[in-house]
Amino acid sequence: MAINHHEFMSRAVQLARKGLYTTHPNPRVGCVIVKDGQIIGEGFHKKAGEGHAEVQALASLTTDAKGATAYVTLEPCSHYGRTPPCAEALIKAGVATVVYGMQDPNPQVAGNGLKMLADAGIEVLGPVLENECRALNPGFIKRMEEGLPYVRVKMAMSVDGRTAMESGESQWITGPEARQDVQRLRAQSSAVVTGIGSVIMDNPSMTVRIDENDQEADTKAVRQPLRVIMDTALSIPPEAKILYPTNEVLVFCDEEEIEADHLKTLQKKKVGVRFLPLADDGRLDLVEAMGQLADDGINEVLVETGAVLAGAFLDSGLVDELVIYMAPKLLGSEARPLLSLPLEHMSDAVELNLLDMAKVGNDIKLVYQPIYREEENA
Amino acid sequence: MAINHHEFMSRAVQLARKGLYTTHPNPRVGCVIVKDGQIIGEGFHKKAGEGHAEVQALASLTTDAKGATAYVTLEPCSHYGRTPPCAEALIKAGVATVVYGMQDPNPQVAGNGLKMLADAGIEVLGPVLENECRALNPGFIKRMEEGLPYVRVKMAMSVDGRTAMESGESQWITGPEARQDVQRLRAQSSAVVTGIGSVIMDNPSMTVRIDENDQEADTKAVRQPLRVIMDTALSIPPEAKILYPTNEVLVFCDEEEIEADHLKTLQKKKVGVRFLPLADDGRLDLVEAMGQLADDGINEVLVETGAVLAGAFLDSGLVDELVIYMAPKLLGSEARPLLSLPLEHMSDAVELNLLDMAKVGNDIKLVYQPIYREEENA
Repeated sequence: MAINHHEFMSRAVQLARKGLYTTHPNPRVGCVIVKDGQIIGEGFHKKAGEGHAEVQALASLTTDAKGATAYVTLEPCSHYGRTPPCAEALIKAGVATVVYGMQDPNPQVAGNGLKMLADAGIEVLGPVLENECRALNPGFIKRMEEGLPYVRVKMAMSVDGRTAMESGESQWITGPEARQDVQRLRAQSSAVVTGIGSVIMDNPSMTVRIDENDQEADTKAVRQPLRVIMDTALSIPPEAKILYPTNEVLVFCDEEEIEADHLKTLQKKKVGVRFLPLADDGRLDLVEAMGQLADDGINEVLVETGAVLAGAFLDSGLVDELVIYMAPKLLGSEARPLLSLPLEHMSDAVELNLLDMAKVGNDIKLVYQPIYREEENA
Repeated sequence: MAINHHEFMSRAVQLARKGLYTTHPNPRVGCVIVKDGQIIGEGFHKKAGEGHAEVQALASLTTDAKGATAYVTLEPCSHYGRTPPCAEALIKAGVATVVYGMQDPNPQVAGNGLKMLADAGIEVLGPVLENECRALNPGFIKRMEEGLPYVRVKMAMSVDGRTAMESGESQWITGPEARQDVQRLRAQSSAVVTGIGSVIMDNPSMTVRIDENDQEADTKAVRQPLRVIMDTALSIPPEAKILYPTNEVLVFCDEEEIEADHLKTLQKKKVGVRFLPLADDGRLDLVEAMGQLADDGINEVLVETGAVLAGAFLDSGLVDELVIYMAPKLLGSEARPLLSLPLEHMSDAVELNLLDMAKVGNDIKLVYQPIYREEENA
């Protein structure tokens, strides 16, 4: 019996992953309906405004669901949003058992959906495969639990930890497979963050150029993450590629340091510009910025930037994952450092926890979780 | 038939590995003797002065070897050294077939052993599992083919490519498993090389403290690699730990820069001191030093040193493997670089070829082969 639960929940997780690039700001959820050991319906949430996973699964039924078991990766919702509550839909369909993967991460509603089901006489089991189900939605969960997005900082470096020559001379140091992998990171992010330095240096477009099957796609045919630029003095050139299309972009700046004319020029182009307070270090307050993004429904953030802003993110305690692509070369001891992070003593060293390592083409991909001291002492 | 050859040669390779730490300056060799599909004898070379693998295998026979097949990882020798030629021993034993893994790497004698066997009417087959057989003896092969030892440069660094804080404050940044792995690298090396800077900073003993089963052992109970110190001005303190016992140590210096008194003090202690010419960069000529070590029978060299000497080794084109232990921490942008290697342009970057990656405790071990431009153009 337990084995079957795992098997069907695994299938639900697999289905949920189909929404990896598209559900924003909603969570990725999968659902499988089983009767007499056979799957009679399955579905997943594809995008906001379209049916939740349970509704999709019920709509796909090949026979009625009376007495069936529904497997859902996330506790069914109990509230009326853009769609009626899924708990109600499952009750109406007559399922006898609901197996869930994890409770609603919003502490204020967690358990309500399960209670609604139980009150209607449905057997409720779970959590089943909770780790796998949580891994579907690191950003949605962190936003609900902490009011912050899940932040990945992506970096490309040489074996000796350098990103470019001293002169600033740089070029793609990693191979095409690593760059394709970055496309996947972008596609699953609600927002991509960079700094004005990178914008001026490289004039990147920071777009997603793959579809949900990881195939090359027109940028207009796929969901584009919000592009966010940290630009204290609002010095971004109005023609910077990253500003277009302007409805998907947000520039954070310091009200005291900007030129009114430049602000007007950008606003005429309908570029989103928002003022931020400064943090103790005199830089834009990154914690405040991330909090605002979470309030806007941003789940996962990919930071693609240079050593200074990346170092500031790390220093601010906001980083959940450092994703490093290490190219098989040495750039030498005069080349630019990975992170601008001046530490004096061994005891200041940032400890990391290795989450993943893999060969990606000729490069190595390393995923580390910074261990922040606050967490250590908690 | 071919499958059997691989199976028995694999066993011979496995046997040869038992001499990994002990055969210096000889190669590691294994031998299996097979009759009617059954192994009737096996052996490996353990240490110089003791029997070669073929002789050990013949000595272990459970029945006579008439008509048997002998598998040897390396072409049997044809010359009288400390022991009579192995080819002769195989002929006398009456084996019908000899399967070899690789020819003698000394171009001047390669094939002589095989010819001696064939002339005696023995069927000679090979090479079989040549890559595996060559991998047993990278140092012996390079010494025979190029007159240079196989050089591994071992480094421990943080994820951001740093080895110590700017102040010089340092400590073991890698974990106990990585340090144990370094013991294995040392144990298989004929010589360990370091620089005077490391000696003065850390006063290391650079001894092997494991036996052939990788168990902790008294340093006197196991073969110690020759300890070599690059010390241009001969400024090594006579009490430095690395000098003892003095019969296993060699200090390279520049005759012009030394103090005669200090030389006398060291010579009284029977420390080996040798003068070296300077290279174009004004440093001790590393190519000449490695050539002299090869002439002394040094097969594999492990370089354990700081950024400056390691950078010079790399720059000199002598490095066959960079063995990097990467600890899960960030030491920051002010910390000391992995290699002192000032490069100006992207086009100067040293390209590497990833040979191996593995988790070792909490650290990652990366083995890279530098791609020297001379080789690229060859």
